[in-house]
Amino acid sequence: MEKIVGILGGMGPLATADFLRKLVERTPAARDQEHVPVVVYSVPQLPDRSEAILHHGPSPLAGLLQGAAVLRRAGAGCIAIPCNTAHFWADELAARSALPVLHIADAVVAELAASAAAGAAIGILGTAGTLAAGIYQQRLERQGYRVVLPDADDLDHLLMPGIRAVKGGDLATGGRLLAAAGTALQARGAAQLVLACTEIPLALAAVAAPGLPRCVDATACLAAACIDWWRAADAPGAALLGYSGQRT
Amino acid sequence: MEKIVGILGGMGPLATADFLRKLVERTPAARDQEHVPVVVYSVPQLPDRSEAILHHGPSPLAGLLQGAAVLRRAGAGCIAIPCNTAHFWADELAARSALPVLHIADAVVAELAASAAAGAAIGILGTAGTLAAGIYQQRLERQGYRVVLPDADDLDHLLMPGIRAVKGGDLATGGRLLAAAGTALQARGAAQLVLACTEIPLALAAVAAPGLPRCVDATACLAAACIDWWRAADAPGAALLGYSGQRT
Repeated sequence: MEKIVGILGGMGPLATADFLRKLVERTPAARDQEHVPVVVYSVPQLPDRSEAILHHGPSPLAGLLQGAAVLRRAGAGCIAIPCNTAHFWADELAARSALPVLHIADAVVAELAASAAAGAAIGILGTAGTLAAGIYQQRLERQGYRVVLPDADDLDHLLMPGIRAVKGGDLATGGRLLAAAGTALQARGAAQLVLACTEIPLALAAVAAPGLPRCVDATACLAAACIDWWRAADAPGAALLGYSGQRT
Repeated sequence: MEKIVGILGGMGPLATADFLRKLVERTPAARDQEHVPVVVYSVPQLPDRSEAILHHGPSPLAGLLQGAAVLRRAGAGCIAIPCNTAHFWADELAARSALPVLHIADAVVAELAASAAAGAAIGILGTAGTLAAGIYQQRLERQGYRVVLPDADDLDHLLMPGIRAVKGGDLATGGRLLAAAGTALQARGAAQLVLACTEIPLALAAVAAPGLPRCVDATACLAAACIDWWRAADAPGAALLGYSGQRT
């Protein structure tokens, strides 16, 4: 029986496709059969996550639980969620689906460990919901990092309109706004930026943003965590493939 | 209850990610909730499709049926397969899963109808398995097209090594070999080329191949067929969104 990674996606759908591409690109494989098996539930007809967290909008939890149940029935042994904001419900999802959630912020912390010393200032580019929910702050501070967050003005005028532009397919506008949000964090001391919304790397890839500091792509970190989970010792094929567990 | 498109993927996994991206890009949508809901089964531990068709290798049919069963249990109302060669088993899959298969060659024929007159010479770039199984020939000839196929030499030295290079992550080598295969079909009279292996558009996008005739991307055609299926009259949200059904 093959170990399968369950992907709870659709938030947004382009970010889900981008996550799958990064999962494939980060997997050391010479042929189809050496790639990570996944089942993806990408049903984007869910209530908006930031609205639910910030303004008591309709909760997406019921839809997320339904997706988790589909993934479990499909044979998934864990859940990865290529949406930072949805991690607000990560603990409840893990508890009620009885599947472990590979947490995107844990994956980012693991990647930062290689490049940022304790005390480094780390900027977070994410939705208002992700920031209000504190999905990253506590995990980063626990490692001794100083967290630099966008101010309310940049959230309203750069980050949220930038993310909405990407969801509407306008990567160029999104990239321009989101690069400006990154520059603002840099001006306030951030030595590295966490791209903590799965729409952001898509947008920055579409524009030239040469002045930004090192960007840690949370989507790619989550992909690496999925590969690690699949290649862990209990995966039947892992030893045969000689995978080192290193991220490339 | 939302209509859901079932994607039987993993053949290869990069092509599945590319298909999802094209599905999103072709959908007229301004926010997440207007995108096509999908469930994807991408378990690439299936026997090689061309080997099974050409050399009596192990059949992938059992694995394909298992994937179709997962998609059906997950609520899918149809199946799309972003792998041309696997369409060798399309009829059996449709019959045994009791779900309609949106056939990739039908989607290509629909797209060609807008740009190629009867009598036009259409070149097919595909795997040896796709060509041997006749997945395209009969459908194109029924529309009055003349079909131009790669010869055995180009299959062995350009197409198959080019596709293997993409599956191994080397898009530049793949692109160079596959562009040469296209040039050879053009030299033999093809006025348009069908990119009839989901790895081929990925590779051609990675290289400059300015001399090729118009290329019809079978992956993108299949994405358009999925959007049409979802937006058909029985989809609850279709009328509200004012989708015209036109391919862009």
